[in-house]
Amino acid sequence: MSSYSNHPAVTVLGLGPMGRSLAGAFLAAGVRTTIWNRTPGKDRELTALGAAGATSAEEAVSASELTVVCVVNQQAADAILRRAGVARALKGRTVVSLTADTPQRARDTARWAAEHGIGYLDGAIMTPAPSIGTPEAVFLHSGPRDLYERYRPVLELLGGTHTHLGEELGRAATFDLALLDVFWTAMAGYAHAVAIARAEGVTARELAPFAQGIAAILPPLFEEFAADADDGTYSGEINPVTSAASTMAHVVEVSESHGIDAGVMRSVEGLARRVIGLGHGGDGFIRAAEVLGRH
Amino acid sequence: MSSYSNHPAVTVLGLGPMGRSLAGAFLAAGVRTTIWNRTPGKDRELTALGAAGATSAEEAVSASELTVVCVVNQQAADAILRRAGVARALKGRTVVSLTADTPQRARDTARWAAEHGIGYLDGAIMTPAPSIGTPEAVFLHSGPRDLYERYRPVLELLGGTHTHLGEELGRAATFDLALLDVFWTAMAGYAHAVAIARAEGVTARELAPFAQGIAAILPPLFEEFAADADDGTYSGEINPVTSAASTMAHVVEVSESHGIDAGVMRSVEGLARRVIGLGHGGDGFIRAAEVLGRH
Ligand SMILES: NC(=O)c1ccc[n+]([C@@H]2O[C@H](COP(=O)([O-])OP(=O)(O)OC[C@H]3O[C@@H](n4cnc5c(N)ncnc54)[C@H](OP(=O)(O)O)[C@@H]3O)[C@@H](O)[C@H]2O)c1
Ligand SMILES: NC(=O)c1ccc[n+]([C@@H]2O[C@H](COP(=O)([O-])OP(=O)(O)OC[C@H]3O[C@@H](n4cnc5c(N)ncnc54)[C@H](OP(=O)(O)O)[C@@H]3O)[C@@H](O)[C@H]2O)c1
Repeated sequence: MSSYSNHPAVTVLGLGPMGRSLAGAFLAAGVRTTIWNRTPGKDRELTALGAAGATSAEEAVSASELTVVCVVNQQAADAILRRAGVARALKGRTVVSLTADTPQRARDTARWAAEHGIGYLDGAIMTPAPSIGTPEAVFLHSGPRDLYERYRPVLELLGGTHTHLGEELGRAATFDLALLDVFWTAMAGYAHAVAIARAEGVTARELAPFAQGIAAILPPLFEEFAADADDGTYSGEINPVTSAASTMAHVVEVSESHGIDAGVMRSVEGLARRVIGLGHGGDGFIRAAEVLGRH
Repeated sequence: MSSYSNHPAVTVLGLGPMGRSLAGAFLAAGVRTTIWNRTPGKDRELTALGAAGATSAEEAVSASELTVVCVVNQQAADAILRRAGVARALKGRTVVSLTADTPQRARDTARWAAEHGIGYLDGAIMTPAPSIGTPEAVFLHSGPRDLYERYRPVLELLGGTHTHLGEELGRAATFDLALLDVFWTAMAGYAHAVAIARAEGVTARELAPFAQGIAAILPPLFEEFAADADDGTYSGEINPVTSAASTMAHVVEVSESHGIDAGVMRSVEGLARRVIGLGHGGDGFIRAAEVLGRH
């Protein structure tokens, strides 16, 4: 790349699949991009595209107004950022963390950044690395709104949709975790369903279109149940927990009759039974959200 | 109802929410409908609409060429059907069971029916009672194709889509179970996500649109993973199980830091760790389907 845009220069720390995709999207948008990774040798493709390869994190963050850090977890991000030389170099600059971790650890690093005069935003990427630079990418952000607004134009060069969830720094991580909770639990259900189906002589490809049909009925139910959960109305008129629990028991029974571990569904059924045991058997299953939150 | 259609008369056994909806849809389509329920008094609305209320199951099944049974489970269906008087009355007629239960119990009752000269089809209803009679209803059927074709026109009066999954009698129940497995596991993930979000100060309504976004990415993944599972290709290039397991551990950690039981996610993580422990950490999570099915 020989010409640069009006956007501020950006440093990307971390060159895993996601870090590489982020740096690639900045480069493709004509942003002056500096890159660094703990283990050397991952920057070749990107330097060939015009990225500046730094030999230390200090050097890397000194090159840009904005640093995006995207490594495996917050501990790794802290191992890079929370050193005297890097902190000094970052003073007066801004870090956007796109590293996935817990809300608490995100807040903790933001506190450290504030103590060192470093602007800090926390974000989460909800879509896989190949989505970066395409309309499919989904980014969630949290932290000071003015800082977000200042860097929004350059962040939007990563493609997709960007949502600022609020100033409370932990919000992006909270949404991230909650959404990954839904995602991986659903995936575990799907993997288990495929295992049961095969044991009964049904292929995954035969099941898939119907499983897609099930996924398609989730969005309106999520909306309806969100209102129930917020309002404390848990009508189980159409589908009481008692009925759900009996279905769950059938899944466990058939699974185990084939020697297929039913641990996940056993836990799901346990949750339903807990709701019933507390006297809410006639309620809808989403009453479980309230029961889980009781202390 | 004073005029009847050309369709054969139908008897509906079981007047829970679903049985009532089925009988209501037959009546609305002008079918001569006879109804019966173990506990009397549930037939009033329907008799007001023109249904014939029978005083015994024998009497009920004698009134129609086709009997639809829809009760809580197969044990309840057997308690109604598998009596000498009812078996005699059903001889030469056809039963369609729309009662949800395991494939094995469905096959067992079909065997009993064959021994008594009774035509038998097993079906599953994948949508809630209010969907009956609307385009949203989803019915799955299995059993002898000729019998299905003979009664398809009258079954289609129940609205929605009807799919014959094959002659093997257990297929409807297998698909039903597998799909309910996906559904209830996903719902448990959602309820848990709502509980975590609330503990972090995020309302269910705030989370819902993003949870809907997650549901929207499931269908293409279900298709892709079905091909992986059937073909034994488990590429984890974009998202290896190791990375998923670390995300799952974060969900467990945050959940438990708020005193929220993480049993379901602990089981999901356990499954991921089992896949990793078997040396498949670099594979995609759907490798879990194969690992679950190992004996
Ligand atoms: N990949 C995706 O599709 C995707 C989707 C959404 C979100 N994310 C998130 O994006 C982040 C990055 O993911 P990724 O896919 O790029 O790969 P990853 O495997 O999660 O992270 C790899 C990166 O972390 C670095 N790292 C690990 N331990 C370190 C340490 N102690 N100190 C310094 N650096 C360390 C690695 O450096 P070395 O090369 O030196 O090991 C490498 O740069 C994660 O938080 C992930 O959850 C990824
Ligand atoms: N409701 C839905 O939205 C829905 C959706 C999809 C599938 N299904 C399936 O449809 C079937 C019926 O469900 P439902 O919602 O109508 O209500 P349900 O509560 O599952 O079943 C109630 C019916 O079962 C009868 N019953 C229970 N035990 C019996 C026994 N030992 N002997 C004879 N009858 C007995 C009840 O008769 P009494 O009145 O005498 O107790 C009543 O007719 C179930 O298999 C369910 O899984 C329902």
